[in-house]
Amino acid sequence: MTTDYRFLKACRREQVDCTPVWMMRQAGRYLEEYRALRAQHSFLEMCRTPELAAEVTIQPLRRFELDAAIIFADILLPLPGMGIDLEFAQGEGPVIGNPVRSAADIDALRPLTPERDVPFLAEAIKMVRREIEGKVPLIGFSGAPFTLAAYVIEGGGSRNYVHTKRLMYGDPPAWHRFMEKMSDVVSVYLAYQIEAGAQVVQLFDSWVGTLGPADYREYVLPYSQRVIESIGGAVPVIHFGTDTATLLTSMKEAGGDVIGVDWRMDLGEAWALLGDDVGVQGNMDPVILYAPPEVIEAKVQAVLDGAAGRAGHIFNLGHGILPTTPVEHAKVMIDAVHRLSTR
Amino acid sequence: MTTDYRFLKACRREQVDCTPVWMMRQAGRYLEEYRALRAQHSFLEMCRTPELAAEVTIQPLRRFELDAAIIFADILLPLPGMGIDLEFAQGEGPVIGNPVRSAADIDALRPLTPERDVPFLAEAIKMVRREIEGKVPLIGFSGAPFTLAAYVIEGGGSRNYVHTKRLMYGDPPAWHRFMEKMSDVVSVYLAYQIEAGAQVVQLFDSWVGTLGPADYREYVLPYSQRVIESIGGAVPVIHFGTDTATLLTSMKEAGGDVIGVDWRMDLGEAWALLGDDVGVQGNMDPVILYAPPEVIEAKVQAVLDGAAGRAGHIFNLGHGILPTTPVEHAKVMIDAVHRLSTR
Repeated sequence: MTTDYRFLKACRREQVDCTPVWMMRQAGRYLEEYRALRAQHSFLEMCRTPELAAEVTIQPLRRFELDAAIIFADILLPLPGMGIDLEFAQGEGPVIGNPVRSAADIDALRPLTPERDVPFLAEAIKMVRREIEGKVPLIGFSGAPFTLAAYVIEGGGSRNYVHTKRLMYGDPPAWHRFMEKMSDVVSVYLAYQIEAGAQVVQLFDSWVGTLGPADYREYVLPYSQRVIESIGGAVPVIHFGTDTATLLTSMKEAGGDVIGVDWRMDLGEAWALLGDDVGVQGNMDPVILYAPPEVIEAKVQAVLDGAAGRAGHIFNLGHGILPTTPVEHAKVMIDAVHRLSTR
Repeated sequence: MTTDYRFLKACRREQVDCTPVWMMRQAGRYLEEYRALRAQHSFLEMCRTPELAAEVTIQPLRRFELDAAIIFADILLPLPGMGIDLEFAQGEGPVIGNPVRSAADIDALRPLTPERDVPFLAEAIKMVRREIEGKVPLIGFSGAPFTLAAYVIEGGGSRNYVHTKRLMYGDPPAWHRFMEKMSDVVSVYLAYQIEAGAQVVQLFDSWVGTLGPADYREYVLPYSQRVIESIGGAVPVIHFGTDTATLLTSMKEAGGDVIGVDWRMDLGEAWALLGDDVGVQGNMDPVILYAPPEVIEAKVQAVLDGAAGRAGHIFNLGHGILPTTPVEHAKVMIDAVHRLSTR
């Protein structure tokens, strides 16, 4: 039964009865039941307590007909084990106390030992698998080497990535050494999740769209490729980024069974560019969920029209669902995907 | 003599002796002589005092062999005359005290009367023209209707444009009425600058890259087109945006003699997409100016290679020069453009 999930079939580009759908950040602040738990625990505490992580992973499945669960975690969770001080400041997102700026900083980073550094994650994955077995598959994930490196170098989010690019352009040997370390950490981290029971993994290269195609190929592609090759086909890989209209074919070259596309590109054009030998995930603008239901349904139809019924489409938002999204609008979207795509 | 400027010839896609170059925000904080003046005056005070605006417009010309001046102003300067409270908070960029959120807010907006609302701008343009006559031409500019509307609706900068898109998707008639008003204001504002002596104008649709191509065509294109048509070929128009890889052909359809391209796209590919009947401006990543000189020169060469000597290339950064840029690196870039492109 578990191999027959609609979601996994789409990952393998097999025919499905209707298009599978999930939402990035579907376990999150737009749900009042999530906010109620979050009021009692810090974000990292929730990630590191298997019972809490499992509970919020499952919350959205109680409300919506989602086709996959994604383990509750953060793309930056591999970092503390490397010796990086990670905190989540109130309303400000991740803050890194000891940003990496020099070759010496890079050399001081430790490899990840998942059993020591992220044992809670394997436990949470196992708990969720037991609860959802036979219903939907479970996605594991990590930040991709570039996106992790950018956070670690900048010390948090960034607009222009000045420190990151300064290292990349100014000291390429240090950059490449850093990215090698990051690739190894991400590979080990994903393998650990797969071993624990993740049935698909998504590699989030969320901020790679700050680079042009030549820089992507020189400074990023080999490392994302190394991570994806390390998985060796054990489970399907979704390779995701935003702002990647000019990077898509290079991202495909780096690897992935399914390439994530954001809303800035027409889905049909993206797929034409990528070719039919890969799946596509996306690509509705998360902000459309603030629009009236009839607009949401029209936009769902437009995305499905772009996919044109091809095998290998996974419906998703182009980026994570926003915290102030009306929850009933998420349901409108999810139900519309299934209804409007029924073969 | 004035019609023979290298910059204007490139705008008309005529052959030039070498590629013209300027930098967005070339009159700005990366220059110590700018910071010295700025320490004594608020940003808006500098915009509104013709002597100060003229002085900082000319400052970068004293340091670099730039091929154009751009009048010191802000893309949001047409707003206060419409009844919008605009301030620049310390280090936070523009803040709008009375953001527009409803149809009633939109109806209350006034048309622009430049002689009353922005007379300082015409004066500054005339002062600069007198000083630079025979040396380089002067660019005038405005925010494009979408980018202005987004600032006005959000109340400042934004990451996700939730309020903007909520109005756009939720109340299309109000959106279209708002954009009509904005187009009229921008048209009048640019005409006033041209009458005062601006020899080229640039339309900054800086944040339009938050939209996909279908939304751009429905909600934005007609209004940018209306503005550009209103200029009626009086001066060349540069039509600029960032994150526009999937919007370029639609931006060309909206109009402009030269289309701005950011660093996320290979310049040669952008031009192939746009066709040879339009000029292209760009497209070096501003962050490359933090790299060592030899890297800057290699990246200049890569952009020039993309242009492949075609008539109609104006070299620029893909977005404004950043405040902490080493000033001598700007000189490295500008000199390299001329040296490496000499026919």
